[in-house]
Amino acid sequence: MSERRNIAILGSTGSVGCNTLNVIKKLSPKFRVTGLAAGRNIELLYQQVKEFKPLIISVERREDAEEFKKMYSGPSLKITFGQEGAEEVAHSSGADIVVSAITGIAGLRSTLAAVRTAERVALANKESMVVAGSLIQNLAQEAGTEIIPIDSEHSGVFQCLNKERKEAIKRVILTASGGPFFNFSPQEIREKTLEEALNHPRWKMGKKVSIDSATLMNKGLELIEAKWLFGLQPEQLEVLIHPESIVHSLVEMKDGSLLAQLSPPDMRIPIQYALTYPEREEQILPSLDLRMIRTLDFYEVNHEKFPLLLLARKALVEGESYPVALNAANEVAVEAFLRREIKFLAIADIVFEAVEKHKKRAVESMEEILDVDQEIRMQTKNLIRRRV
Amino acid sequence: MSERRNIAILGSTGSVGCNTLNVIKKLSPKFRVTGLAAGRNIELLYQQVKEFKPLIISVERREDAEEFKKMYSGPSLKITFGQEGAEEVAHSSGADIVVSAITGIAGLRSTLAAVRTAERVALANKESMVVAGSLIQNLAQEAGTEIIPIDSEHSGVFQCLNKERKEAIKRVILTASGGPFFNFSPQEIREKTLEEALNHPRWKMGKKVSIDSATLMNKGLELIEAKWLFGLQPEQLEVLIHPESIVHSLVEMKDGSLLAQLSPPDMRIPIQYALTYPEREEQILPSLDLRMIRTLDFYEVNHEKFPLLLLARKALVEGESYPVALNAANEVAVEAFLRREIKFLAIADIVFEAVEKHKKRAVESMEEILDVDQEIRMQTKNLIRRRV
Repeated sequence: MSERRNIAILGSTGSVGCNTLNVIKKLSPKFRVTGLAAGRNIELLYQQVKEFKPLIISVERREDAEEFKKMYSGPSLKITFGQEGAEEVAHSSGADIVVSAITGIAGLRSTLAAVRTAERVALANKESMVVAGSLIQNLAQEAGTEIIPIDSEHSGVFQCLNKERKEAIKRVILTASGGPFFNFSPQEIREKTLEEALNHPRWKMGKKVSIDSATLMNKGLELIEAKWLFGLQPEQLEVLIHPESIVHSLVEMKDGSLLAQLSPPDMRIPIQYALTYPEREEQILPSLDLRMIRTLDFYEVNHEKFPLLLLARKALVEGESYPVALNAANEVAVEAFLRREIKFLAIADIVFEAVEKHKKRAVESMEEILDVDQEIRMQTKNLIRRRV
Repeated sequence: MSERRNIAILGSTGSVGCNTLNVIKKLSPKFRVTGLAAGRNIELLYQQVKEFKPLIISVERREDAEEFKKMYSGPSLKITFGQEGAEEVAHSSGADIVVSAITGIAGLRSTLAAVRTAERVALANKESMVVAGSLIQNLAQEAGTEIIPIDSEHSGVFQCLNKERKEAIKRVILTASGGPFFNFSPQEIREKTLEEALNHPRWKMGKKVSIDSATLMNKGLELIEAKWLFGLQPEQLEVLIHPESIVHSLVEMKDGSLLAQLSPPDMRIPIQYALTYPEREEQILPSLDLRMIRTLDFYEVNHEKFPLLLLARKALVEGESYPVALNAANEVAVEAFLRREIKFLAIADIVFEAVEKHKKRAVESMEEILDVDQEIRMQTKNLIRRRV
């Protein structure tokens, strides 16, 4: 990979987006940013445009696109908006690599557009894989697109697998730090505030994934993501609590040997790997010193305290529209929690209620997926309205 | 690897040899034993011959070969003896894979013979690599012979490296359990007996390597072995104490990501891997359960307590005849300890004294290596004689 490669970032003002730009800056001039898709943070997007000079950008709302046009003066730049705008950034920026880092099912359309056109999709938008894993993998196969995971756990699995044969894999273990409430009783968790839920002990991340980490739903989504990324059966996938967040995942081979990937908990490491694979570039952070860390601990998950992980496992086994329903209910419930409309423990209650009513059905197209998504969103919003 | 492969085992009655036969039995009928070279344990060799029906065997002494001939009745079997006998087993048994598991420099000739003729050498005889790494690697390259390590640490590194590029490797960390005396003070170690030194907390191994593990010389020899196996610089090689012996080695890539290999401390796992690579066969042992193990600890080496590791590092840096001298002095001192002629702490004292006097010189052939070996053996024996 000696020539310069073009990159588009979907979700450039989010946590993964900012980290990706940070990595690209360090790797300069090996990569060139050609497209950026953001949400509503147009001040930050403006700074990113000034610094990285893309050819095309998109924002979430039309009015922000208009405002951006007024603010902007500089080299030729196409300014678009909405889902179609993000899709256009994905497929029309001339990007070799698209970093898909929009949170939630909101990233689905643009992820699909990227899978159709880019050489490589560096995937951080796990919800797309959860709701449309089969669709994405089929498209990627048809188009010959590489999908390299950015999620640290999946990056770890990807690195461990390397040229191992798929038949040699016995199981994949994703680790979970346990989140901010790992050491608290259910009674104590009941009183936890939004700020406490957002305060992850190991990772600095966006709000949605931080809350998902506190409920362990994040690990559930990752199980489903891993199934599709690595073509595994549900019974081959396990979760282990590992509070230090140093070992991100382990792959057990059928001969009983395990390979594990370790790194400091910093997203720039898997991001850089996803951009430079199969090469590796210089490290951004000081080396891990296991003599300083001294101890790596591993525990079983307490499913009573974190019931959403069990529900996600059910979705992993059931398949079809079940993961779509799970994801939709969870997105709505987390948004309500972020708006302080419900308490932390109500997230799980609401998701369970919404998903248990769902009758699963086949979902084969994006439209069918989005139909289920909309249906469950509506129902979940009603459930929340009735509670508050 | 669907066809049956022929295997010869050099050192068949030792710990690695017996474990190898155990693995071959499990993998039956994929492998066929065509040659066995043993030492003086002809009763055990006799059982092995009855069970595995090789075409050629060798023993250490002529008288044992004669006795074996008298005992033996069965299918046609060539019975040889001595260094030449072991060499003949290595190169004339028609083996595709030769397992080199004779302990010490005594295994050098037959290892070289195997590297010249076999498709693959599964290497447990680390001392050969320590004294003749350059020679072995050159021969292997010329002959197109694969060398797959059996030492658990090196097997771990080999598995982690997989198709990673050599330029991407920052450093390799070999773990050490710390041996039976890890938790004792130098004063306490002074009083330790042979039985205590042989009683390794994690691994069941032969006597020589058990004592080397108690002094940490084993880890020093492994550093030198790793240099040659993986083409690394001395400063890329590190040792970390890890009492649980679950993580056998770690490879840090230049992007700061580490890959680690974990397995229960049982030699049959790396042995099976060395035989079946690139395939993996079914596991022999129950899966590792990290929830049961709970904690993996890592410590710095206490060099004051284990000075031989520092001396081995010096040999690693100095190269040429220095590792030959180190190995010879250590073999002689350990033999004296095993015969209860010297105390445990005297092993290090004697090796230091012998090696510090040595003026290093180039060693390019087996003859030159064996010359240095003989010279240091004599000097070390004199040092011991003067002490007792």
